Amino acid sequence: MTALKNDRFLRALLKQPVDVTPVWMMRQAGRYLPEYRASRAKAGDFMSLCKNPTFACEVTLQPLERYPLDAAILFSDILTVPDAMGLGLYFETGEGPRFKKTVSTLADIEALPIPDAQKDLGYVMDAVSTIRRELNGRVPLIGFSGSPWTLATYMVEGGSSKDFRKSKAMLYDNPHAMHLLLDKLAQSVTAYLNGQILAGAQAVQIFDSWGGSLSAAAYQEFSLAYMRKIVSGLIREHEGRKVPVILFTKGGGLWLESIADAGADALGLDWTCDIGEARRRVGSKVALQGNMDPTVLYANPQAIRQEVANILKSYGSGTGHVFNLGHGITPEVDPANAGAFINAVHELSAQYHQ
Amino acid sequence: MTALKNDRFLRALLKQPVDVTPVWMMRQAGRYLPEYRASRAKAGDFMSLCKNPTFACEVTLQPLERYPLDAAILFSDILTVPDAMGLGLYFETGEGPRFKKTVSTLADIEALPIPDAQKDLGYVMDAVSTIRRELNGRVPLIGFSGSPWTLATYMVEGGSSKDFRKSKAMLYDNPHAMHLLLDKLAQSVTAYLNGQILAGAQAVQIFDSWGGSLSAAAYQEFSLAYMRKIVSGLIREHEGRKVPVILFTKGGGLWLESIADAGADALGLDWTCDIGEARRRVGSKVALQGNMDPTVLYANPQAIRQEVANILKSYGSGTGHVFNLGHGITPEVDPANAGAFINAVHELSAQYHQ
Repeated sequence: MTALKNDRFLRALLKQPVDVTPVWMMRQAGRYLPEYRASRAKAGDFMSLCKNPTFACEVTLQPLERYPLDAAILFSDILTVPDAMGLGLYFETGEGPRFKKTVSTLADIEALPIPDAQKDLGYVMDAVSTIRRELNGRVPLIGFSGSPWTLATYMVEGGSSKDFRKSKAMLYDNPHAMHLLLDKLAQSVTAYLNGQILAGAQAVQIFDSWGGSLSAAAYQEFSLAYMRKIVSGLIREHEGRKVPVILFTKGGGLWLESIADAGADALGLDWTCDIGEARRRVGSKVALQGNMDPTVLYANPQAIRQEVANILKSYGSGTGHVFNLGHGITPEVDPANAGAFINAVHELSAQYHQ
Repeated sequence: MTALKNDRFLRALLKQPVDVTPVWMMRQAGRYLPEYRASRAKAGDFMSLCKNPTFACEVTLQPLERYPLDAAILFSDILTVPDAMGLGLYFETGEGPRFKKTVSTLADIEALPIPDAQKDLGYVMDAVSTIRRELNGRVPLIGFSGSPWTLATYMVEGGSSKDFRKSKAMLYDNPHAMHLLLDKLAQSVTAYLNGQILAGAQAVQIFDSWGGSLSAAAYQEFSLAYMRKIVSGLIREHEGRKVPVILFTKGGGLWLESIADAGADALGLDWTCDIGEARRRVGSKVALQGNMDPTVLYANPQAIRQEVANILKSYGSGTGHVFNLGHGITPEVDPANAGAFINAVHELSAQYHQ
């Protein structure tokens, strides 16, 4: 394997010293980039882009050509696992992800298979190894999955949801069925992420996009418990190096202490937390990733720079911070503003690492 | 004025002893009730229901006929103030609220008038006095308004929004303009709520539905600061009785300490906070209102009862708790389940008030 030329991202996740704060952006390979839109038009649709390792590699690398990012993230969708369970993922224009089949009874759940990472999700493994080879040691590659609760909401609702009516009805009305579904998903995600690590992912992130929709008690029982289970089953060292694990519960700011206890190396923060307060709350247990409001990128470069300065100052001196947005970059952002953001992180953070 | 027969709600907000925990539901006069749907069909559309004091009174009282609720809340919309500023509120089926005119420049904002509560929002004042008269002392009447930040998002976006793109762009790119808008809204809301209090509202709640979309720092500067300003300008005693003020920032669980310092009597909590932890955090400063996940009402009555028991136990003994949902009751709920919820609160809470 080629030696890693820039390992700031991995070092910061493990709380090792760095020269400047590393930075990447959730959804950095995305619609705000004209070259991404061109690749997508070429591929036909979103799932063809995900399922073709050459295209997936092409779009993964695009933001790295534009910006001095400190990590690449596998281009894929969070719903590949339920798709591999036979639910039939598709995308309707302007409607977000949809499933052909949904899950509503205990019998539906009992019938779900645990996908084999190589056999059923081979296209993802191929994308990981292709990207890793093409990166050629420039920066580390992040693999990822949706969390069990997040995947379960889509499987039960049949797509996106505003109030999670069906999935929460199942949770409260038939908790046994929901637990069985989450347990199957935890097994599936563990195998999926381990497959990505063996194929070349050098860190992994679990996206718990909808954990924040739960009550404090339900979050512990129906989301965090299953992420803890996954973390305990992951390959944590590969190719002679630690493989850091990041947990990101959007809207999970109230529960940072317990998320920090789940065994991961780092927590992702959305923009509603003050990162300095979050650091005091989690102590030395985990690194923190985040957390600028992505809508700041709609402002002028000077305002963006000021927000970066505020977040760096709030985190303070020392390692353990990976800069990121608090959620994915949105399609309407001017790519020049994303550049101003990334440069500001590197330029303004050096003083905190002396 | 008729003496109040049931003042549990007002007493709990002021941390005075009560026999059982009082309970009401946000959006208790709403689409889950067949009698509400009948009134709405009779009125024609949603705004006709709001603008006609007889209809507004009729639907306000409907849930009180079904359930032993401890408070009534004025039936109205949070967007009456921007409507009175000349923006032209209307509702498109399935689309939520829309404005004919939006606000995008400093000049637009400078041109906005501060509505006169009597002259421009007389229909709301009439509804309050009509409802108050018809209640005849059964339970107290709650008046309400949207928060300045929440109203500003609708005015800038022209309606509902997922990511508040335009309003946050203004906040970060042109904070001076946003502050002017929020200042005008704070003046307008103060006059509006004082008008409601003089017309007969016995408590008022400020709904900060979208404060939780802001970063920690932006929340302080662009939402909480203006709610504090409103609270300091409200009539706090009327008809020889205190008029309690409730602040409800949905998604504001991280900031309870500072919200508790804004001068209100009580805080509304959404369901993501553990209410016992919230109580420890705010100490004796304020009462708490909340906070069952409204989706629990999709479950069976036994599960609903269990969740009520969990929340009562978490809050613990003593006064200072008004039971509510963490957000509005949804149209799909079975009215019988709402009844099971309300009865459970009264039945299970007596032991905490001995």
